[in-house]
Amino acid sequence: MRHDGREVDQLRKVDIVRDFVIHPEGSVLINVGGTKVICSASIEERVPHFMRGSGKGWITAEYSMLPRATEQRTVRESSKGKITGRTMEIQRLIGRALRAVVNLKELGERTIWIDCDVIQADGGTRTASITGAFVAMTIALGKLVNEGKLKVLPITDFLAAVSVGIDKEHGEILDLNYLEDSSAQVDMNVIMTSQGNFVEVQGTGEEATFSRKQLNSMLDLAEIGVQSLIKLQKETLGDLTQLVEENIKR
Amino acid sequence: MRHDGREVDQLRKVDIVRDFVIHPEGSVLINVGGTKVICSASIEERVPHFMRGSGKGWITAEYSMLPRATEQRTVRESSKGKITGRTMEIQRLIGRALRAVVNLKELGERTIWIDCDVIQADGGTRTASITGAFVAMTIALGKLVNEGKLKVLPITDFLAAVSVGIDKEHGEILDLNYLEDSSAQVDMNVIMTSQGNFVEVQGTGEEATFSRKQLNSMLDLAEIGVQSLIKLQKETLGDLTQLVEENIKR
Amino acid sequence: MRHDGREVDQLRKVDIVRDFVIHPEGSVLINVGGTKVICSASIEERVPHFMRGSGKGWITAEYSMLPRATEQRTVRESSKGKITGRTMEIQRLIGRALRAVVNLKELGERTIWIDCDVIQADGGTRTASITGAFVAMTIALGKLVNEGKLKVLPITDFLAAVSVGIDKEHGEILDLNYLEDSSAQVDMNVIMTSQGNFVEVQGTGEEATFSRKQLNSMLDLAEIGVQSLIKLQKETLGDLTQLVEENIKR
Amino acid sequence: MRHDGREVDQLRKVDIVRDFVIHPEGSVLINVGGTKVICSASIEERVPHFMRGSGKGWITAEYSMLPRATEQRTVRESSKGKITGRTMEIQRLIGRALRAVVNLKELGERTIWIDCDVIQADGGTRTASITGAFVAMTIALGKLVNEGKLKVLPITDFLAAVSVGIDKEHGEILDLNYLEDSSAQVDMNVIMTSQGNFVEVQGTGEEATFSRKQLNSMLDLAEIGVQSLIKLQKETLGDLTQLVEENIKR
Amino acid sequence: MRHDGREVDQLRKVDIVRDFVIHPEGSVLINVGGTKVICSASIEERVPHFMRGSGKGWITAEYSMLPRATEQRTVRESSKGKITGRTMEIQRLIGRALRAVVNLKELGERTIWIDCDVIQADGGTRTASITGAFVAMTIALGKLVNEGKLKVLPITDFLAAVSVGIDKEHGEILDLNYLEDSSAQVDMNVIMTSQGNFVEVQGTGEEATFSRKQLNSMLDLAEIGVQSLIKLQKETLGDLTQLVEENIKR
Amino acid sequence: MRHDGREVDQLRKVDIVRDFVIHPEGSVLINVGGTKVICSASIEERVPHFMRGSGKGWITAEYSMLPRATEQRTVRESSKGKITGRTMEIQRLIGRALRAVVNLKELGERTIWIDCDVIQADGGTRTASITGAFVAMTIALGKLVNEGKLKVLPITDFLAAVSVGIDKEHGEILDLNYLEDSSAQVDMNVIMTSQGNFVEVQGTGEEATFSRKQLNSMLDLAEIGVQSLIKLQKETLGDLTQLVEENIKR
Repeated sequence: MRHDGREVDQLRKVDIVRDFVIHPEGSVLINVGGTKVICSASIEERVPHFMRGSGKGWITAEYSMLPRATEQRTVRESSKGKITGRTMEIQRLIGRALRAVVNLKELGERTIWIDCDVIQADGGTRTASITGAFVAMTIALGKLVNEGKLKVLPITDFLAAVSVGIDKEHGEILDLNYLEDSSAQVDMNVIMTSQGNFVEVQGTGEEATFSRKQLNSMLDLAEIGVQSLIKLQKETLGDLTQLVEENIKR
Repeated sequence: MRHDGREVDQLRKVDIVRDFVIHPEGSVLINVGGTKVICSASIEERVPHFMRGSGKGWITAEYSMLPRATEQRTVRESSKGKITGRTMEIQRLIGRALRAVVNLKELGERTIWIDCDVIQADGGTRTASITGAFVAMTIALGKLVNEGKLKVLPITDFLAAVSVGIDKEHGEILDLNYLEDSSAQVDMNVIMTSQGNFVEVQGTGEEATFSRKQLNSMLDLAEIGVQSLIKLQKETLGDLTQLVEENIKR
Repeated sequence: MRHDGREVDQLRKVDIVRDFVIHPEGSVLINVGGTKVICSASIEERVPHFMRGSGKGWITAEYSMLPRATEQRTVRESSKGKITGRTMEIQRLIGRALRAVVNLKELGERTIWIDCDVIQADGGTRTASITGAFVAMTIALGKLVNEGKLKVLPITDFLAAVSVGIDKEHGEILDLNYLEDSSAQVDMNVIMTSQGNFVEVQGTGEEATFSRKQLNSMLDLAEIGVQSLIKLQKETLGDLTQLVEENIKR
Repeated sequence: MRHDGREVDQLRKVDIVRDFVIHPEGSVLINVGGTKVICSASIEERVPHFMRGSGKGWITAEYSMLPRATEQRTVRESSKGKITGRTMEIQRLIGRALRAVVNLKELGERTIWIDCDVIQADGGTRTASITGAFVAMTIALGKLVNEGKLKVLPITDFLAAVSVGIDKEHGEILDLNYLEDSSAQVDMNVIMTSQGNFVEVQGTGEEATFSRKQLNSMLDLAEIGVQSLIKLQKETLGDLTQLVEENIKR
Repeated sequence: MRHDGREVDQLRKVDIVRDFVIHPEGSVLINVGGTKVICSASIEERVPHFMRGSGKGWITAEYSMLPRATEQRTVRESSKGKITGRTMEIQRLIGRALRAVVNLKELGERTIWIDCDVIQADGGTRTASITGAFVAMTIALGKLVNEGKLKVLPITDFLAAVSVGIDKEHGEILDLNYLEDSSAQVDMNVIMTSQGNFVEVQGTGEEATFSRKQLNSMLDLAEIGVQSLIKLQKETLGDLTQLVEENIKR
Repeated sequence: MRHDGREVDQLRKVDIVRDFVIHPEGSVLINVGGTKVICSASIEERVPHFMRGSGKGWITAEYSMLPRATEQRTVRESSKGKITGRTMEIQRLIGRALRAVVNLKELGERTIWIDCDVIQADGGTRTASITGAFVAMTIALGKLVNEGKLKVLPITDFLAAVSVGIDKEHGEILDLNYLEDSSAQVDMNVIMTSQGNFVEVQGTGEEATFSRKQLNSMLDLAEIGVQSLIKLQKETLGDLTQLVEENIKR
């Protein structure tokens, strides 16, 4: 048993609160154990310069942590005047992941801005952000369908993300909290659809390497985690769940 | 009656949630009507360069809004790579206000970092930030007293802030929400102590001017508002309230 | 008597030199005691993006100090690559104040750029900037009237600014020099029109508070100071004075 | 057969030129097809602030492309005044990968600066950079051994990187050039050691997903490619090859 | 005769006002025709990091123009957040030139900060800056001698600068004003000592070239101009002139 | 004889490699002793904003050094987020020099981007850049002639640059390497055409001065060096050489 009493293949308690703030077109608060992220989706009725006239939409994401989301206060990126490499990596990852399950042609020349703001951090903030952002985005696009601006919900599948890793004591484990993440030999983020396909696989040895067999065990754990998260997404999305499921069958 | 049913001298519903996030030494969520601000206080055991060796502490504040705290998405200051003049003004104001009720010598060579992050905005974010930050700071300093790091709580009085203004239809009004603020002729922020003294008075005509009489009416309203807010601060602070009250009598 | 021999309600020697530099449409050097500011007004025949098509004009201000305007050399903001919060506050204040006495519709879609460059500083640089900038702006707009580009001078009233404060020894005092400003308990800037109305009131306790009574005394002093300054503006403006006075009566 | 005549499991022509420039402690030019990267390794006799006193060394990497490494001229990051997210991702990746095969304790409190400058780009610049940087770094560390500054060569294994992907026409393919990369459905970078262990696996669907089976085929191709590259590294490194091989056996 | 009535070898009216502002250790206003520059010299009792322990002093210069020094308003470099290449070139030139006539060993570990702020521009601002800065610097160093901080005035010769150029109509001319400078084919700045030696020669064809003979004519004119300027410097410097003249004989 | 065995009027070994990289319209590697610079010329079919509608073309240059072009690693300007004054000076110089021998009207509304990237530095990088950039630019413009986009090659003369200086031991010397440059008393860069005219002359005393006689000796040496370099340019340019020679006669 892990230090917080979990089995190696057990997620932390996950909870998704809809409409946490009122202004965005779609908004959730996702809690994964001690990790809390406000995910918002905003619709802009135009696309960036490089996509104008393409007839296709775009999805872009921004990620940030409040200074005291962490145990030690982190300096604000706005104070430093630049965004760290870590933040850039994460926001590029979130945007790319969501674009894999949106039919950008059906979206039309619109931009979806995703904002993931971590208000409390305990490991897995990027995977929680993706899992929550999918729900916020689906809610926002659902509104466009309701308002008649979109004929179909342009989402092709559910999408969730989870971290897996290799721990000295327990071997391959699912959903690392901050303590586990700090001492893990290998850290891997897996983003998958409800159909079991990969959207992104990022495994990194931390001054260490890993074998093909270990990679396979981690992917097995990730699949278990992602399916649980997608189950929760479906419960949270209510009527919109059916629309996505119909799209999968198309 | 105002558009939301309030009297001219009536505050919106105010609510202060203690320990909203777990990592900071002091933390509250303050809700003033639709305005929601997470206020955190962090203790650093050193002072900025220009104060070293002075034997005195320092208080500094940072203020930010989530991009979708507002009805239209605002570009992140970290993306722009610089802080706007408005943000700078507000963070300087928050720090200055709190320093007026802290005995910096008794604080010793420590820095209190105040972070005010607006997660939802409906007018009065700077005054809500100050009112909430006072509570977060007092909680954080209370911990230093409990841990024996401070002999006395170095707070000399309660401190709260409120906005007042002049409306075309209703004249002088208390605690403007976003709609009222957008159309007000005069906008004024007042920061006061429980003893009825001013810490800061900032009144601005928006392409308009105001008379001495109007200024006086606004100050009367502000006093009513501040006293209500301080009453709520006292309820939130529990045992710490008595310590501050004893300091006032010193 | 104050350390420089003045009474508590006495301004320093004030002097406004017209056309100090030749290129700007309006330019003055204002000397307030040892404080010397070059104020220029430039007319641009278009407005910023956010005002296009509104039929209204705009006024924006920039403020800077030469590195050796001060006793200790100050690092240039251009070398640091960013503008300090203090500078931002001041330039926002100057622009806002001037907009309160200009009829932006009558100005039409033009921008007035105000540049206040402090070449020598001895306290009260922001209030001297506003008092001088009003004259430079009026001269520049007078030229537009003379050239037939404007039918009327779009200025609704005279405008001047002065600092007041509370000194440990002398209580409330008018027009603080650097020495007085450094040790003042309360510092307040008041911007008023010739009709005795307020455009901006900013009073700040410096790690101190102030009572309603003290506030009132300071406002009384400010009114005396502003009326003297406006008298001097009228003398400097010559023929343009009458045009403004006619506008007041309108 | 692919458009350039290669089999799906065939690398492009690879060539590593030692000592391409004279100043760095280690330097190579690596050519992978039309991709040409100058890789330099510089030794600094101290570590970054956050590692001082740890007794361990550090490896950090910077990556850049000449403006006309690409078909269309790219704007310099120094002209833009900031580094793109893509560059940040790549330089973090290079540093992390190399750290996985260096014994940082044996390195001691030194920093190895890796510079990868792409002078001509035709796909796979990040994997070519890693493969070349490993050689440059080993040469530089070999010099420290020769100079008696290090007792052992602190390298635990050979390290090379290659890209794999999924092409609409040919399915899984090895070592994508720019043309293939632009149209690939899945793009994956794999970094491995001579012992067949993974250091990093990064697979990304480009508005597409991929199955577990496809992932496995890509990993099989990557292993073929990496082993060929390591064979070439061994030829290039001459005497140093044996030292690394002895370390593997330790 | 030139458009402003001057001969080809005639300087504009030059005037140097000592102690124009009160705070700097040395300060002049130099007027060269319509060009007006405030030159200040500040003494700092330490040198930059790269010179510590060398026993030698340093001289560094900063140059700026007020936005309305020019006919069209120029955007402030502090607003743009960066210094233009032109400004950088000029401030490097001023510092380098002054260092050529200062004995840095005799100066000791001190930095002289030169600030040249152009308040009105009509061509030749960089040469006026150098000519004025030499006087301001000498005054500041003279104070160190008077205060006993320096045993000797560490200045080895007088130094002045002038522009020369080639005009379509008049051929080689001395001391170009803005109108002449704008249409000149060749623009050249010459910095010389009283002994007739060059410190810097910078001649540039503006989409044009120039012959050796033309170069020689321009250098002849420059010598005439520089000697006149040095005569004026000597008059302005009073008692300090003799100290410099003694140093020349050393 | 100099430390590397050269006479005072002898260039180092110079070598120009055409088409060093494949993507640019014109590209050379120039080797001047140990100095190696990749010079690229790119054609953009439009001009900067300030030249639109003028019917004339533009030439702009960027210069950079790889971090390990130098003996000690230099921090990248992209990492620092700003370009140094030295780099700005050099890129302005390169652009200005090339514009002196191009008929911008004949070029038409096109921009030529010159990129000079120093991959190994041993003194004289700016003069090598200009000499190489002239060749790259001529190749690129030759392509426009071949493609029928230009009727004539818009180059009016050959252009090369060389450094000269004054050495304590050998007096005036030609083509300084890094060692000589570091200890030179005077450093001068001369840019000339094949017809013996100057485009730019920049001579600087390094905490020293120089006489008119020394200036003349340096110019004599520069002429020798430039003529040798132009001879090599002619050999490298092949058929294009005749086109330039015809233009000279026009």
